[in-house]
Amino acid sequence: MSDHKHRPAIVNRLARIEGHVRAIKEMAQQDRDCGELLIQIAAVRKALDNAGKLILRDHLEGCLVNAIRSGDEEKVLEDLQDALDKFIR
Amino acid sequence: MSDHKHRPAIVNRLARIEGHVRAIKEMAQQDRDCGELLIQIAAVRKALDNAGKLILRDHLEGCLVNAIRSGDEEKVLEDLQDALDKFIR
Repeated sequence: MSDHKHRPAIVNRLARIEGHVRAIKEMAQQDRDCGELLIQIAAVRKALDNAGKLILRDHLEGCLVNAIRSGDEEKVLEDLQDALDKFIR
Repeated sequence: MSDHKHRPAIVNRLARIEGHVRAIKEMAQQDRDCGELLIQIAAVRKALDNAGKLILRDHLEGCLVNAIRSGDEEKVLEDLQDALDKFIR
């Protein structure tokens, strides 16, 4: 747990993103304009990117530093590479 | 309403995305690996892009066609341009 000092902030951001997606869903149900929906979807995407960056920061500051200190970095670096491949376009 | 024949599918997709974000939030609360979270965030982002594309399709097939037929396209095209500027990176 000590590896992840930004986790409370990340949980918070994800909770806000969840609420934002729910609000867009309700806008769609209320037959709101396509343009309005697209703008909100772009905003959620940006919020997701920022949440992802914060997770990455946690990972670099916490998991990775600890793993390298304990000489246990191989698996952590491999997992990180895999996650980056999927996260970064 | 007849302008938006894909709306039920869009609402469905947004409901699934909402559930997916909630699941990632719970993973973060359970202190799951950073890499796992990043992979799930990338998956949500992709689902959002696809929902956005479906909204755009609705817009082109519905709103825009109807607006042009009724000679009322100026405002619709302007709004669409604004939405595309925000949606497409």
